[in-house]
Amino acid sequence: MQSPSLHIRRVGIDTWRENVVYLHRDCPVVRAEGFQALSKVTVHANGQTIAAVLNVVTDAQIVPPCDLGLSEEAFARLQVEEGHAARIEHAEPPPSLAALRRKIAGERLGREELHAVMADIAAARYSKIELAAFVVATQQYELDRGEVLHLTEAMIAAGRRIDWRSEFGAGPVVDKHCIGGIPGNRTSMLVVPIVTAHGMWCPKTSSRAITSPAGTADTMELLAEVELPLERLQAIVRQTHGCLAWGGTADLSPADDILIAVERPLAIDSPGQMVASILSKKIAAGSTHLVLDIPVGPSAKVHSLPEAQRLRRLFEYVATRLGLQLEVMVSDGSQPIGRGIGPALEARDVMQVLRNDPSAPQDLRQKALWLAARMIEFDPDVRGGDGYRIARDILDSGRALTQMQAIIQAQGERAGPLPVAPLQLDITAPRTGVVTAADNLRLARIARLAGAPQVPEAGIDLAVRLGDAVQAGQVLYRLHARFEADLAFARQLAEADSGFSITPQA
Amino acid sequence: MQSPSLHIRRVGIDTWRENVVYLHRDCPVVRAEGFQALSKVTVHANGQTIAAVLNVVTDAQIVPPCDLGLSEEAFARLQVEEGHAARIEHAEPPPSLAALRRKIAGERLGREELHAVMADIAAARYSKIELAAFVVATQQYELDRGEVLHLTEAMIAAGRRIDWRSEFGAGPVVDKHCIGGIPGNRTSMLVVPIVTAHGMWCPKTSSRAITSPAGTADTMELLAEVELPLERLQAIVRQTHGCLAWGGTADLSPADDILIAVERPLAIDSPGQMVASILSKKIAAGSTHLVLDIPVGPSAKVHSLPEAQRLRRLFEYVATRLGLQLEVMVSDGSQPIGRGIGPALEARDVMQVLRNDPSAPQDLRQKALWLAARMIEFDPDVRGGDGYRIARDILDSGRALTQMQAIIQAQGERAGPLPVAPLQLDITAPRTGVVTAADNLRLARIARLAGAPQVPEAGIDLAVRLGDAVQAGQVLYRLHARFEADLAFARQLAEADSGFSITPQA
Repeated sequence: MQSPSLHIRRVGIDTWRENVVYLHRDCPVVRAEGFQALSKVTVHANGQTIAAVLNVVTDAQIVPPCDLGLSEEAFARLQVEEGHAARIEHAEPPPSLAALRRKIAGERLGREELHAVMADIAAARYSKIELAAFVVATQQYELDRGEVLHLTEAMIAAGRRIDWRSEFGAGPVVDKHCIGGIPGNRTSMLVVPIVTAHGMWCPKTSSRAITSPAGTADTMELLAEVELPLERLQAIVRQTHGCLAWGGTADLSPADDILIAVERPLAIDSPGQMVASILSKKIAAGSTHLVLDIPVGPSAKVHSLPEAQRLRRLFEYVATRLGLQLEVMVSDGSQPIGRGIGPALEARDVMQVLRNDPSAPQDLRQKALWLAARMIEFDPDVRGGDGYRIARDILDSGRALTQMQAIIQAQGERAGPLPVAPLQLDITAPRTGVVTAADNLRLARIARLAGAPQVPEAGIDLAVRLGDAVQAGQVLYRLHARFEADLAFARQLAEADSGFSITPQA
Repeated sequence: MQSPSLHIRRVGIDTWRENVVYLHRDCPVVRAEGFQALSKVTVHANGQTIAAVLNVVTDAQIVPPCDLGLSEEAFARLQVEEGHAARIEHAEPPPSLAALRRKIAGERLGREELHAVMADIAAARYSKIELAAFVVATQQYELDRGEVLHLTEAMIAAGRRIDWRSEFGAGPVVDKHCIGGIPGNRTSMLVVPIVTAHGMWCPKTSSRAITSPAGTADTMELLAEVELPLERLQAIVRQTHGCLAWGGTADLSPADDILIAVERPLAIDSPGQMVASILSKKIAAGSTHLVLDIPVGPSAKVHSLPEAQRLRRLFEYVATRLGLQLEVMVSDGSQPIGRGIGPALEARDVMQVLRNDPSAPQDLRQKALWLAARMIEFDPDVRGGDGYRIARDILDSGRALTQMQAIIQAQGERAGPLPVAPLQLDITAPRTGVVTAADNLRLARIARLAGAPQVPEAGIDLAVRLGDAVQAGQVLYRLHARFEADLAFARQLAEADSGFSITPQA
């Protein structure tokens, strides 16, 4: 009853996160086992097993009838050489499918069930259909707080967990996180040098931009290497107390990465999933203390203070039960932070603040100081209320800049000045009045059309803030781009609606 | 700003219902436009356009850098020859995505929105993730009856609609449908000859088994051709008034087919989706009058009479507003109908009934007569209450058999006797008592493990019915199989639990 063995062949097709196997339609196994296109299968070779989806090949040049073709992703995952014997069989349905169906039917899932679902997702046993079903069935108010707790715990359990304390002793391992949505909000690159200069451990890993014009990893990458294996990261943190690295290589909460890839195209960002996603990543990354920034504003993710309070309570409920010390900071999300939107422009802002440049954006400086203050007060030797003064002293004295340079050196400096866009174009106020509203989403979209983050020097450089009085024709911001087509797209959108509302004053 | 043109190349990979395009990673278009694996793209060639998903190829043997590879499905859909110039661009998100997101957020969709969603689904513009999100967001009680009406209407509008009346005049075009779940329930093959012998139009199209051990198309296929192009179907119906064909080729309610492919692995079968699916298919197929069978029982799809009544009212609400005359028949779904479960065994039962064989299963005969009676009463010339007598006369007189033979001849007879399984094994009662319950789901699963429907002679031949007194060791049913492995699997399941409950009598 076992299917005969086939020989592994690497097929040069990149299917991203989906394992695909290619079998010729005349392969005896296809005929005997009744495999069809899109059948879910399990591949066994040399003690390794992967789940995959089948594509049936009609061209023996791609895969001959007795070979088992593997897409690049599947080949990398199976970790077995070409030509090796492999066996393929119909995949058993993922063990947690009954739990998924119960959730779809609106029932409450228990701890064991959520652990089973996350284990199956992390092992790539869910199809995209099943992933999307889970995401939709658990969105909005479909998860109660007990379920969110167990989901978070299950996401952590399904991946790797870093234990810094075994290395650093009992001191707090601090982190900060913003729930996102505010362009230019690049505070991590200020907070990490400040708190590590104070002597705290802050091994910060960040993401790249997914839907935004810049992520901390994209921005930091202009100054230093950010793709660092865990062993290097540990050495860097031992030396400098902190880092500003990309978190994508560490296999922390992998089920979360897989779910995010499904949530994104659906534009689903519900409270329970957000809490589980953020807290699972932070706890898996070894943080013991976290300052969480929830910006509130008409075009932020959270639109009202009551909504922010509800979200805060959910974060606190889960964090407390998982042993994470959490401080929530509700901040003003009514406009971008700093002047630049896009990796190079944001890196410029950050360096201006660190250098105490008089032209540095003060809103970015202030926000970073408040966040650093709360993190410094996690230090048991600091008196409540002293955090802000300590943070400001570190920044004003130049110690934060020195510390940033040490971190850059440790990670591997990227030499040379920040790139500057060859194409620049001003967007001006259509009328005289006062800037009464800023649309974060539209500004982010314009910056992306200009090329950010793929083109690091592209983006928007803001010249106005809420409350500013402007004359008709005065510059609101400058578009930066590398390519004519990008500039034309961004200009078209900006000229239709700049993202700023100008109200004439009586 | 238009990407340069590429040359179409057919890639021999069958990706089933998903259009995949293959571009080499060194293709200038990939670099210039920032395409990534799994990007959604639009392909334009010779005035045709298709939506597709991108796989990036690293092997120039599969696709050279200036070619645009198309999977078999994509190549068939685009209908443009190899070597033809084509252009590719980032896909615009499907226009109805905003409506999908509103539905995910729990809001009510209007008529225009549901039409837009179905049009996008039928044009293959939804990803699997978006399809699954729609299915989960519209399941259970998430669609009100107005939405179900508009969904049904939108499914019809998104496909082809057959108009028999322009050919046959104003007489009713009758059909019957069972919501499914009862093994052996092969009444269509009796009802069609009876009502067409009465002179009514009944161009019946049926599905193949998806999760059941046999569909009407699988069973009829043992007697006649069932894969008939629409023109042949029309000629056959003109000649015999009816047909028993496979409905898969006609492009009727294609959005429904696409959604079913997503609902199936999730085991979602919610009232709103069921009503829209069934009624859209029937109306698109040109039916004007429909008898709908809702079996009720502990292991049927519908478990209680109140549930059946709720479902009936939803069917009636939608049918009335779309101009379909509907008669709902709530039937006994507590056990299989007839003796055979599996294509050949069910075909045998049907032919026994048509031949008035004394050993014919009486429950199958009775159920078919009741259904035919209701359909015959759609005839304006038949008095209410006369349908049953007319149907019985047609069957008893042999006119139904003659009519079935005419339909078989017209579709193309499959010569030779029905296949008989070479391997047979009895499953016996473990104790003495009375048969008090039958598990339709388990019996269907055992029949499928025995090989049905892929092996047409495989399945189960029942020897008992509810209420029968049995002795320990008496035969409950006989397993039929072609392959030893299938028989062993089915036997293992049947011996663990036969699907029949035997209660000892005091």
